[in-house]
Amino acid sequence: MEIVFLLYENFTMLDAIGPYEVLRGIPKAQIKFVAKESGLVRNDADVPLLNAAYSLDEVKSADILVIPGSPNPAAAIGDAATLAWVREIDTTTRWTTSVCTGALILAASGLLQGRRATTHWLTLEVLRSFGVEPVSERYVRDGKFITAAGVSAGIDMALELLAIECSVEVAQTTQLMIEYDPKPPFDAGSPAKAPATIVAQLRKSFSLA
Amino acid sequence: MEIVFLLYENFTMLDAIGPYEVLRGIPKAQIKFVAKESGLVRNDADVPLLNAAYSLDEVKSADILVIPGSPNPAAAIGDAATLAWVREIDTTTRWTTSVCTGALILAASGLLQGRRATTHWLTLEVLRSFGVEPVSERYVRDGKFITAAGVSAGIDMALELLAIECSVEVAQTTQLMIEYDPKPPFDAGSPAKAPATIVAQLRKSFSLA
Repeated sequence: MEIVFLLYENFTMLDAIGPYEVLRGIPKAQIKFVAKESGLVRNDADVPLLNAAYSLDEVKSADILVIPGSPNPAAAIGDAATLAWVREIDTTTRWTTSVCTGALILAASGLLQGRRATTHWLTLEVLRSFGVEPVSERYVRDGKFITAAGVSAGIDMALELLAIECSVEVAQTTQLMIEYDPKPPFDAGSPAKAPATIVAQLRKSFSLA
Repeated sequence: MEIVFLLYENFTMLDAIGPYEVLRGIPKAQIKFVAKESGLVRNDADVPLLNAAYSLDEVKSADILVIPGSPNPAAAIGDAATLAWVREIDTTTRWTTSVCTGALILAASGLLQGRRATTHWLTLEVLRSFGVEPVSERYVRDGKFITAAGVSAGIDMALELLAIECSVEVAQTTQLMIEYDPKPPFDAGSPAKAPATIVAQLRKSFSLA
């Protein structure tokens, strides 16, 4: 069982590491971090923190593909070689998944055409421009494609995937090991719940370059 | 505002990356990942994924110190130089914090003596051997020390710290940006909620080496 994470400049760390800690629960999981070039990949704070052991050329298949998001995925969306790689890997996967705006990369590759999907709440409507039906849910499964909402939603999505792929017991065991019994001190994690002024400020300051 | 994450062989990635994504919400935060030697640090899957740009020798102070946990923190707990560094940094901090079994490293350094603290549910009673009062809560604040429960609890702890250090609005803004509106598909994230058989299996298989 090979699980492949696609890294690219400007990606968000938690989008990858949330699902990573969960999908490790799959017995015999072999996990690869892959980027255009192997080595440290700069994240969305422009810091080289996470290491891709493999280049795109070195990885030609995956059982599960995970595409993390970025506050600015424009470069990845505009990179024909990355999109071609995503399409090629997808022909081999059991599950093709994304977290946050990783869904826009998946959509740009054409793979979500006519499907239902979700992404970060700030970019939900962007999906339409790729012929994808935006759905405001924590994660959305359509066939073998599972897309998660913003950043932390990848943890919930991965637990669901673990249950489907292995069993509810394996998912619950992993949940208990990572003590995922969330108790955020505030209830501001979605635009429907956060103070309207904060939602408005973020909408105003955000733009996809 | 300098935020320092202590990395060490066998640490758990999400323990560090959860708080990392949240504490970045502090304006002008300067974040450093530090390890005994700079460079890639092997995680608890024995994979060199995360990069420490600094060695312990290069960092002598922090406003906020974060110590992530590990399924086996024995080596770090037994390393006198690491514990001395933790004590030295602590003399400069506004907040000294831990996630998961990072609390055991903090406890071993002597800094939690006589204080209330929490850690991963599997190791809660170990705190007593260091003269620390174990508390079964999502995170525990005692003076400038904040300790979080297992792995994912670091996200909740960091949101609380963000609110104390900056404001509730800053914490809510960050929560909304990382769309932290958790909806785990199962309710098995604590030993009180998970199926008893799973709790028993994990208790049986777990030991601190």
